Amino acid sequence: MEVASTVGLATRDDLSLAYTPGVARVCEAIADDPEMTRHYTWVPNVVAVVSDGTAVLGLGDIGPAAAMPVMEGKAVLFKSFGGVDAVPICLDTTDTEEIIETVARLAPSFGGINLEDISAPRCFEIEDRLKERLDIPVFHDDQHGTAVVALAALQNALKLTGRDPGTTRVVISGAGAAGVAVAKILLNAGITDLAVTDRKGVLHSSRSDLTPVKKALAALTADQTGRTGSLADVLDGADVYIGLSGGTVPEEDVARMAPESIIFGLANPTPEVHPDVAHKYARIVATGRSDFPNQINNVLAFPGIFRGAFDAHATAITEGMKLAAATALADLVGDDLAEDLIVPSPFDPRVGPAVSAAVAEAARRDGVARA
Amino acid sequence: MEVASTVGLATRDDLSLAYTPGVARVCEAIADDPEMTRHYTWVPNVVAVVSDGTAVLGLGDIGPAAAMPVMEGKAVLFKSFGGVDAVPICLDTTDTEEIIETVARLAPSFGGINLEDISAPRCFEIEDRLKERLDIPVFHDDQHGTAVVALAALQNALKLTGRDPGTTRVVISGAGAAGVAVAKILLNAGITDLAVTDRKGVLHSSRSDLTPVKKALAALTADQTGRTGSLADVLDGADVYIGLSGGTVPEEDVARMAPESIIFGLANPTPEVHPDVAHKYARIVATGRSDFPNQINNVLAFPGIFRGAFDAHATAITEGMKLAAATALADLVGDDLAEDLIVPSPFDPRVGPAVSAAVAEAARRDGVARA
Repeated sequence: MEVASTVGLATRDDLSLAYTPGVARVCEAIADDPEMTRHYTWVPNVVAVVSDGTAVLGLGDIGPAAAMPVMEGKAVLFKSFGGVDAVPICLDTTDTEEIIETVARLAPSFGGINLEDISAPRCFEIEDRLKERLDIPVFHDDQHGTAVVALAALQNALKLTGRDPGTTRVVISGAGAAGVAVAKILLNAGITDLAVTDRKGVLHSSRSDLTPVKKALAALTADQTGRTGSLADVLDGADVYIGLSGGTVPEEDVARMAPESIIFGLANPTPEVHPDVAHKYARIVATGRSDFPNQINNVLAFPGIFRGAFDAHATAITEGMKLAAATALADLVGDDLAEDLIVPSPFDPRVGPAVSAAVAEAARRDGVARA
Repeated sequence: MEVASTVGLATRDDLSLAYTPGVARVCEAIADDPEMTRHYTWVPNVVAVVSDGTAVLGLGDIGPAAAMPVMEGKAVLFKSFGGVDAVPICLDTTDTEEIIETVARLAPSFGGINLEDISAPRCFEIEDRLKERLDIPVFHDDQHGTAVVALAALQNALKLTGRDPGTTRVVISGAGAAGVAVAKILLNAGITDLAVTDRKGVLHSSRSDLTPVKKALAALTADQTGRTGSLADVLDGADVYIGLSGGTVPEEDVARMAPESIIFGLANPTPEVHPDVAHKYARIVATGRSDFPNQINNVLAFPGIFRGAFDAHATAITEGMKLAAATALADLVGDDLAEDLIVPSPFDPRVGPAVSAAVAEAARRDGVARA
């Protein structure tokens, strides 16, 4: 990865223009009207990819230096798939307040903030507080990127199996960053019968060990249906299983799901239900892996979401923008829709433009667009 | 300006390698041995260009958003003239402690820190504390970039006029970031008769209004020679005048300097002594402007200094490295040395390589090189 100049610097005149004294006029224009930042700097097209290295891939808390290659890889994907310039920033602190303060102080340099691989539950507070404080998009990709692509895949899986969101029984295992975000977007997309489990079973208000985030999620999910118990209990008769927890679901539990079930085992590199097992019972199977069909991969979402947000000069990424991104992804599959093709390929050149157009339009609809 | 990928991303295999799961092996290698950062990330070649927007060019405190074009221009010069990747970072704080904390937290993401356009005296403490705290080069270009190029120009001017540093009387007006740094590098380069003035006259320990930085500088300069009084008083008979203050030196004061004097009026865009006036009395005249001969421009120094520091994988930029950069610049002029050619052109392709080689060698000599 490298930084490249988009202007030539071959003569004294070029130098006078790109640097002193030419640059002074540009500075004065921005000092007079901060909106000029959009026209005269790279800021509106550049996202900071920020991590503290505490929840890196499946590796866990490996620290900021070792997290850097992931943030660089992410930056390359932002550029390749969304035309978004991205700067990897790994922070030498894991303190919630310090991360919030640091990112807020960096904000004038960036058009958006993509939080990455920050462990739960700190990631929730960090994102919420920064969203409140900043007038640029703040997006925790481990939550919302995963949620958008999972929803797109589920929308197409429901279509294929003739199900309606309002009457479909969904179980999510995992109440970390991704589990919480997927649950929330499914609720926003019309799923009403939803149970989320952690290591101790279904999140339900009858439990006394729930964090505030899990408690709030319980109120929106199993508290509504009264379902409690273990993962095995709620899988019995469920239409959809979405694994965001790691570990393995016993085959006997998978076998007790509803006919024509839908199984997304999204843990990497080992899905919660191996596709060979899942296919014995389910009609539609997806994983996070590139070597099986139906790969649920964030790269389908985040480049286009930021591209669309930047194109609309949006002040935030709203729920409406995420739902629009999911629907755009699901619709792209079109007539090719089949059991082994419920999401488009990341290399489908229509993905970025379709997602960004839908997101920019939703930003305008939601009143957060400035362009 | 843009971020560019140095790897292709056209197939699933490319994606698996640049991102998950391929990137996990790289992360693990760095977690095991942080030195691997050098081989597997862009970190060792990337400098953060950090400002708080308080002392931007001649514009003053215009804030972080309006400072951004200068930092971007600087980043472009880093790349064009030194092959150094640079990321412009403008901070939404002017508090010394907050700036230090913020930059320290960013440090794992960068191979070096270039401080820029931060007002005095905060810039001195910020640089000193960060140098102490971090094991990567920290360099305040407004101080040391200016100092290196001014010293190179002075070395050649002394050579042309047959002067010896130990017996040359030098006057600097301005005790801000650049004035203090130029004074210090001249002392390190063998100048012994040096007076520095601020708006109230010569810095001298007999004054009761000096900041700690100015007091320390007085002890090393006019206290040694006993010279006191106004700028006009010390210019009387002086061999060299270096203006880093803005404002205008009256022609009658210029007229009283020694024969064959040397006048550098470095304020931009209006030199302290206009070249037309200076040439009436001085043998050698330099400014900061590109439209007169002998432009003292930082771009001659900072790209090569960081290139050399990065090539040596240096933990700091030492006084020895700065002196080596100045001498390399002065030497490059070679047989072309003349009254109107005391520093090379920024577009001389030998500048970057010569400075970086000298700096890397000095880093090894000073024991701060790791490669």
